[in-house]
Order: sequence, then structure tokens, then C-alpha cells
Amino acid sequence: MNLLKEKILEEGHVLSANILKVDSFLNHQMDPVLMYKIGEEFAKRFEGEIITKVLTVEASGIAAALMTGLVLGVPVVFAKKKKPSTMDGAFFSGRIHSFTKNETVDIVVASKYLKSEDRVLIIDDFLATGEAAKGMIEIARQAACHLVGVGICIEKSFQDGGKQLREIGVRVETLVSINALTNGKVDFV
Amino acid sequence: MNLLKEKILEEGHVLSANILKVDSFLNHQMDPVLMYKIGEEFAKRFEGEIITKVLTVEASGIAAALMTGLVLGVPVVFAKKKKPSTMDGAFFSGRIHSFTKNETVDIVVASKYLKSEDRVLIIDDFLATGEAAKGMIEIARQAACHLVGVGICIEKSFQDGGKQLREIGVRVETLVSINALTNGKVDFV
Repeated sequence: MNLLKEKILEEGHVLSANILKVDSFLNHQMDPVLMYKIGEEFAKRFEGEIITKVLTVEASGIAAALMTGLVLGVPVVFAKKKKPSTMDGAFFSGRIHSFTKNETVDIVVASKYLKSEDRVLIIDDFLATGEAAKGMIEIARQAACHLVGVGICIEKSFQDGGKQLREIGVRVETLVSINALTNGKVDFV
Repeated sequence: MNLLKEKILEEGHVLSANILKVDSFLNHQMDPVLMYKIGEEFAKRFEGEIITKVLTVEASGIAAALMTGLVLGVPVVFAKKKKPSTMDGAFFSGRIHSFTKNETVDIVVASKYLKSEDRVLIIDDFLATGEAAKGMIEIARQAACHLVGVGICIEKSFQDGGKQLREIGVRVETLVSINALTNGKVDFV
């Protein structure tokens, strides 16, 4: 997706060999028009698939997921990183570890919002080690729903999350893939 | 906003005299089309005002804020509840206490995303004691930007957050106001 690539070149900051900061348009400040176009692009990539629900995890996945749901006309569920006191009843959960934040959290989704008849598209902002995606896939597995695929805004191809997901047969669509972050530069695939 | 009122009557659950659960369309599962209409309604309420930025707080404020930003054509910033390790440089912060979650957090916004020339519209899903709104107003104050107003999806008018904000001269626009939550029923203003 050229628009996203250009935005990364213009506004992204390479903080280290592992970390690309895109908080001016994706995950702190957000560009709503770009996010809508990202939603359109995911809808296009998965055209022909029946999708009944979009799943993401708070907080930085919400924008892209919401816009994808708007274009597809289906509800969007975001997994919570902490079980709310008001979440009564059954829930599904997946454990994820964030290497950037150095923390492990159990993400949860109330079971009434994912049914076995659902066909789920998982959306997230980044894919690196695949921890968040795997946590959400675990939730979809517990719900026994059909996983249509995973849509990612930016994949760090030099980390093996995407490879792992593809090896277990998950369809992964990434809008922009990055080979390396070296000398402050972004090297796209 | 009748559409939101109807949705609350159809799908909302009164958990106690203080808690209305709307997680089937607003803050766990989200209805993207409803959220877009909420964005349109906020844009209409503040028509004639110059707005350069929408401000909210993660995670449940993001959807309404993003759609408002999409309709207005301006960037949306969400305050984070934890300072990310990648947030280098200066930031603004406000302390908020959640009575529902019984926790106090310092919300933060990188200072480069709120400038003194900005005219800011704060958007959130709920207004009860006004803690979150006051935390965001404090951030806008630190940034020395102009506060256009606060847009709220659901105000619990039986708690005094809205009263407090209006008393200090803040323009508060709420889409739906609730008088009381009694015997499992929602009593709208």
C-alpha cells in the first residue's frame, strides 16, 4: 500500500534495529482518512471471503479494525488487556507477551461476542513476533469460529511472527512489509 | 440522538444504580456504522467552531473520536494510560481515577501532538464523575491550546461530572443523558 509506505517514509522514526515509531499517524495520533483507506484496503484484500466479525486488541489495533468493520459493514470486537469488573459471564482469553513493553498480559473477549458460526478477520497495527496475533487466534480457536485471516498494517519481516503464522496455514495480508531498520532507515520488502 | 437511545434500550444492561453496560455496540464490541453516525452528530453539534484536533483517551473513547475526526477531517490523538517506553521527549499528563475500575492512572500525550495553536475537541464514551474529561482538560491546559468543548456519547446526569465541567465554563455536548438507572431500567433525561 503505497500511501502507507509514503507516510512511513515521511513521518516514521527508526528508534532502533527493532523499533519503528509511527505515532504521528497510527498509534498515538491517528490520521482518520488514512485509517479509512487502510480499512478499504483490507476489505479489498479479503474480497470474496465471507466475514462476519473483525477482531483486534486494544488500543492501537482499534482504528484500523474499526474502519475495516465500517467498510465491510460488520461489528468489530476489541480484546481487552484487563478483564473489566463489569464483564460477567464466560470469556475467552489468550496470553500475549509484548517485547517492546516487556510485559505479559491475558487478553479477554466476552464469549457472547464470538460465536462458532462467526467468520473472523483479525486486524492489528504491527506484526513482529506474532504474539498479539497468536493470542487473538487462540481466542478465535476457543470460540470455535472460522478464522478468515489476519490483516496487518506493518509487518516487520525480519522477525518471524509472520513466518510462524503462515507455516500453520493462516492467511496473512500485510499492507507494508519491512526488511530491516538500519542506520535510521526503513528498508521495505 | 435517538439512534443511540434506541440502541441503549435494545441492548444496554443496567448492572447497578451506577453502571450501564453497553459493550455490545460501544466499548467492547463496536457497531462501526453507529460510531460513524456518532461522529457525524458531534461534527454537527460543534458546527461553526474551528477544530484542529480531536483528543480522547484509550481505549473506549477511540472509536467515537476517530469517527469524529474522520467527519471533521482532522487528526485524532488518544491519551495513553501508560507512558510507552518509546515515548521519548516531552509529554503532558493528567491524573484520573476510575471508580468503576477502582484505579488511578496518569494519562499522557506526547507534547508534539498538542500545540498552543490547536483548537481541541475532547470526545469520550461516558461522562459520570468527569474524571477522564478533567484529566484531558488538564492536558489541554498544559498544552495551552484552546478547548472548544467536550463531546460525550452517554452522560450519567445523576453524577456531577457534567455539572462541574459546565460550572467552569466548558461546553459539554452529550448525545444521550441518563437521569437514573433504577430497577434495571434506563430513565433518560
